[in-house]
Amino acid sequence: MAFVMTDMDRKTWRVGVAGLGTVGAGLLNFLAERPGFAPAGGRAVVTGVSARSRTRPRPFDISNLPWFDDPVALARSPDVDVFVELIGGSDGPAKAAVEAALSLGKPVVTANKALIAEHGAELAALAEAKGAPLLFEAAVMGGTPAVKMVREALVGDDIQSIAGILNGTCNYILTEMEAGGRSFADVLGEAQRLGYAEADPTMDVGGFDAAHKITILAALAFGCAPNFAAAEIEGIEQVDLLDIRMARDLGYRIKLVASAERSEDGVLVRVHPSLAPLDHPLAQAGGALNALFIEGRRIGRIFVQGPGAGAGPTAAAVAADIADVMTAPQRPVFQAPAGALEPFKAVDPSKMTGRAYLRFLVKDEPGVIAAVSETLAGAGVSIESFLQKPTEGAQGVPIVLTTHAVTESALTAAVERIAGLEAVLDRPRLLRIARI
Amino acid sequence: MAFVMTDMDRKTWRVGVAGLGTVGAGLLNFLAERPGFAPAGGRAVVTGVSARSRTRPRPFDISNLPWFDDPVALARSPDVDVFVELIGGSDGPAKAAVEAALSLGKPVVTANKALIAEHGAELAALAEAKGAPLLFEAAVMGGTPAVKMVREALVGDDIQSIAGILNGTCNYILTEMEAGGRSFADVLGEAQRLGYAEADPTMDVGGFDAAHKITILAALAFGCAPNFAAAEIEGIEQVDLLDIRMARDLGYRIKLVASAERSEDGVLVRVHPSLAPLDHPLAQAGGALNALFIEGRRIGRIFVQGPGAGAGPTAAAVAADIADVMTAPQRPVFQAPAGALEPFKAVDPSKMTGRAYLRFLVKDEPGVIAAVSETLAGAGVSIESFLQKPTEGAQGVPIVLTTHAVTESALTAAVERIAGLEAVLDRPRLLRIARI
Repeated sequence: MAFVMTDMDRKTWRVGVAGLGTVGAGLLNFLAERPGFAPAGGRAVVTGVSARSRTRPRPFDISNLPWFDDPVALARSPDVDVFVELIGGSDGPAKAAVEAALSLGKPVVTANKALIAEHGAELAALAEAKGAPLLFEAAVMGGTPAVKMVREALVGDDIQSIAGILNGTCNYILTEMEAGGRSFADVLGEAQRLGYAEADPTMDVGGFDAAHKITILAALAFGCAPNFAAAEIEGIEQVDLLDIRMARDLGYRIKLVASAERSEDGVLVRVHPSLAPLDHPLAQAGGALNALFIEGRRIGRIFVQGPGAGAGPTAAAVAADIADVMTAPQRPVFQAPAGALEPFKAVDPSKMTGRAYLRFLVKDEPGVIAAVSETLAGAGVSIESFLQKPTEGAQGVPIVLTTHAVTESALTAAVERIAGLEAVLDRPRLLRIARI
Repeated sequence: MAFVMTDMDRKTWRVGVAGLGTVGAGLLNFLAERPGFAPAGGRAVVTGVSARSRTRPRPFDISNLPWFDDPVALARSPDVDVFVELIGGSDGPAKAAVEAALSLGKPVVTANKALIAEHGAELAALAEAKGAPLLFEAAVMGGTPAVKMVREALVGDDIQSIAGILNGTCNYILTEMEAGGRSFADVLGEAQRLGYAEADPTMDVGGFDAAHKITILAALAFGCAPNFAAAEIEGIEQVDLLDIRMARDLGYRIKLVASAERSEDGVLVRVHPSLAPLDHPLAQAGGALNALFIEGRRIGRIFVQGPGAGAGPTAAAVAADIADVMTAPQRPVFQAPAGALEPFKAVDPSKMTGRAYLRFLVKDEPGVIAAVSETLAGAGVSIESFLQKPTEGAQGVPIVLTTHAVTESALTAAVERIAGLEAVLDRPRLLRIARI
């Protein structure tokens, strides 16, 4: 409780920044523009930088900053009090440098979702053993403070579920596909040319980035160790323009929804292309926006929306974490001390229930719809809505239907039976209707 | 930076709770249900309570808790480490008890928006001089973490403006007026019977509660001392069902919008019934919901929405603050140490510009509309849209118009000139169109 502001005014925090990509550049710009950045009475000064290439052209001058070829050496430098890791990647130099800083008891600020989702529990144990804060606000939703909300502001509640749009690239692609009536490949190619998507887009479009983020939020919300390996992940590569149109006819928009739910059976973390009702805030969050619902037993539903990426917002989140370090909080990395985190008990996803959307082609002949209906009924799946639309020049007739709530195992069995019908011409496309 | 979790596990924080209304009851229930509440490694135990009446029937048992007739005595008790003030009111026992606790260096958690908005600067100075945290998450938006977002999560940005719906009672009344086609007095009376509105509803419907909240957010966002006296305040008592309907015809919904903006001229804090476009998230936040937009130079726009009141959410916010106290943060009460807060430089509201809605009755005779148009043009006010609707059995014809952006002084002058026209039968009703 010692809180002597006059002492704090004098305290200078020497910051080492490893990784000088978009976010690193944003952070250096921010600290250069705000030399007196002192929200907690302290002052932050960059005393060292590290990146893959020293000479790569950059929109800012690093010639006056001490350079380190090795981020681990930067983390260990006696001139660095706070280590900021913006290298990325779950292993390799990012992990080595973070471990080096924490081992010396130095606070670490990182934007690295893969690192925290995959190694969060062991890093939390190291951080707490050494008395060093480990903060990662920028890892989830960029500048929109999801991490602080869940970790700090909602600890007076029991969070039941979280669901949201956590990957701006996927949201941009899905929004453009619908708006322009374009294919996934077409929009992705354009996004890559414009620099909105990576040359290797797998992390984003494969759902892995969103899965890293929801894994972190689940750990914070439920007080369990993060367990990326337990996440169910499906990306947007298979989302067809036809499904976007059919879903819209049924009153839905397809979004990549990341969700985490806690039940008596354990925790279920999922990333799926999902149907959200058109008037739902998640359906209305377009472009590169991120959006998140948090549902707690006492608080009810909280919704937060904002930019999920970009140099400015993400660097602002890193700066907020640096300010937090200055306040010397004695708070565990996740919701509870690392040793007291509940083991992550994954729910068997086959036992989950939910509504679904199915789309498949059938032969244009009598009795087909009856056969489909009977097959679904026989598998215990009840139809909620049914849509048959003629399409020009198609081989067969596309059928789209939505189901009432059904267990995942019954749904999977029903899909297999339908796929086996003689009158069905392709493998049914299965999408979940979001429980939001 | 000392952070020895094994020591923290043993730390027990003895909590004194003054005020046992809805929120106090929610807090005692929460701590009774979660005896091990230890998100930061510490443990919270209630060691004393105080309220106006010891014997009033309550939905929970306080007979086993030490009782204090005087909240100041509770604040000073050697058995209390953290003082929770839930009495309410800007002065009187609430202020005296908070000052008593802070003077002894004890952390204070309060839900009292009036106290912080009206005396925040002097309490911050006392808190910081004594090294005691002063936290008030529950004072704004109940369980929705607006305070922590602005004070902590967004310090890496320059916030330009904040605007939102901060009073659930007003939002409920306006929503019910529109949904049921009922008058303000009718809905208010029902809300009072149901316990949704106070017997004396002035604080809520007069806009003062929302003004307290936006005053606090403005101080946090802009790093200035809170200045409740500078807030421009208009309540919803004069909102007419006719205006709600006319606004809807023009594509707007009337909401009580609280806003704070910073410009080179200073800070403008306002609470007004305002027109929000129907498809805007603020227009869509119905019932008792609270909703807030925060706009920053780097982060862009962040939107957060959730329950603004209620025992569960508000008590959860108080509990989150108690958890924060356990982490012993060395953070100033507002955005900067009390001595470094900028003086609140109020902008002259007559210089502000914005769009407006005007409604008045005119005689049903030729030339009236021309006269109104010429009068507005002469005052420098440009008409954006114009609506004339016959109403059954009315004395005269109601005219509704919206203006392009205009200075407040030109607008006021134009209203006076229109009121003076011979063909105008009543005083024009002026509402602002929200800048959101």
